[in-house]
Amino acid sequence: MNIHARLEELGIDLPEAAAPVASYVPVVVAGGFAHVSGQLPFIDGKLVTGKLGIHHDTDSGMKAARACGLMILAQLKEAGLLDKVERVVKLGVFVNCALDFTKQPKVANGASDLMVEVFGDKGRHARAAVGVPALPLDAVVEVDAVIAIKDA
Amino acid sequence: MNIHARLEELGIDLPEAAAPVASYVPVVVAGGFAHVSGQLPFIDGKLVTGKLGIHHDTDSGMKAARACGLMILAQLKEAGLLDKVERVVKLGVFVNCALDFTKQPKVANGASDLMVEVFGDKGRHARAAVGVPALPLDAVVEVDAVIAIKDA
Amino acid sequence: MNIHARLEELGIDLPEAAAPVASYVPVVVAGGFAHVSGQLPFIDGKLVTGKLGIHHDTDSGMKAARACGLMILAQLKEAGLLDKVERVVKLGVFVNCALDFTKQPKVANGASDLMVEVFGDKGRHARAAVGVPALPLDAVVEVDAVIAIKDA
Repeated sequence: MNIHARLEELGIDLPEAAAPVASYVPVVVAGGFAHVSGQLPFIDGKLVTGKLGIHHDTDSGMKAARACGLMILAQLKEAGLLDKVERVVKLGVFVNCALDFTKQPKVANGASDLMVEVFGDKGRHARAAVGVPALPLDAVVEVDAVIAIKDA
Repeated sequence: MNIHARLEELGIDLPEAAAPVASYVPVVVAGGFAHVSGQLPFIDGKLVTGKLGIHHDTDSGMKAARACGLMILAQLKEAGLLDKVERVVKLGVFVNCALDFTKQPKVANGASDLMVEVFGDKGRHARAAVGVPALPLDAVVEVDAVIAIKDA
Repeated sequence: MNIHARLEELGIDLPEAAAPVASYVPVVVAGGFAHVSGQLPFIDGKLVTGKLGIHHDTDSGMKAARACGLMILAQLKEAGLLDKVERVVKLGVFVNCALDFTKQPKVANGASDLMVEVFGDKGRHARAAVGVPALPLDAVVEVDAVIAIKDA
């Protein structure tokens, strides 16, 4: 499976890989794994801000989580790793939300479904989804990833 | 050490491995590690909900964290990995709590002590325990894990 | 590069490696990686407590995050791993903060900048920085780490 062709087939345009907000790097490869830094949701180039259960409904949160997932793919592409993905191993999904919001899994599916859509069975991953009270730049979701890389 | 025998010796009955709440898988094995998805606390088949410092005292939180740990073992068993555990490497413990609750380490010990009880020295792990304002399905604790696996 | 000499050159005195608050271990090495438990910020032997956006400004938070980073180095030293660091792979930064605090990246730089200062390019890591409503012992920041280790 050529992932670039698969993305085209799905009509998925990856965003520009965002520069880190601070002094770290987007991707580190070591010991066969790529660790991808927490990615924020940009839709049409604009950061999606606010909290689930206050400013966003679950559907809007899913779209934001998908945007985080697209940014993970964009970072892998920028690092020349998109065609070397052996397995999406783990996603960490942090949902900026009200104290009584409990649909983090539904929101996180925006990122999870994308991985399966793009990579098929290799995209099926372990996951932890939790609520948080606040995120960088008031982003509504942040997603980080551990990816197994071929021949790395 | 046969872990199945050890569990029997300890009188520990593992729960049924819970199906993921959403579109991901409970365990991914890659590069010698099993990544286990965030597990929620079921006691007598019922999800334990609420927040530490509001609806639960620390002792009740510990029991819930232990239940998350049992579910991690149940997922490893379901994946055929329980006898191949080389080392419990890392637990991530997310405690659903009030804004002024500070005993996350005590709560998290419910899961940590279980790992040492079951696996002995191989169960001694690194850990991060933090508070969160909200969890999936209002679960009181969520625990994920990284496990080193023999011959994987 | 001898890291002990480099620390001396930088005038950095590592703290005593703190004992775990509970039943886990500070560092586990497996499969070429050291997983370092979440470390709390001690400055002059005293835990820094409180929340960003309420009790601390960003600059004070950065200093606390740096102190967490120093404790990660102290734990690696205690485990005999400081000279075997191949790459700082990932930092997880949990910032105890008000519900409207959004400068987690700035705070987290306290730890990130330290890693680059000490290890140079090997210190450039992936990162996830998130807000949390509460931390162990009311610590203001907690940082955990994944480190690639030579010949491990």
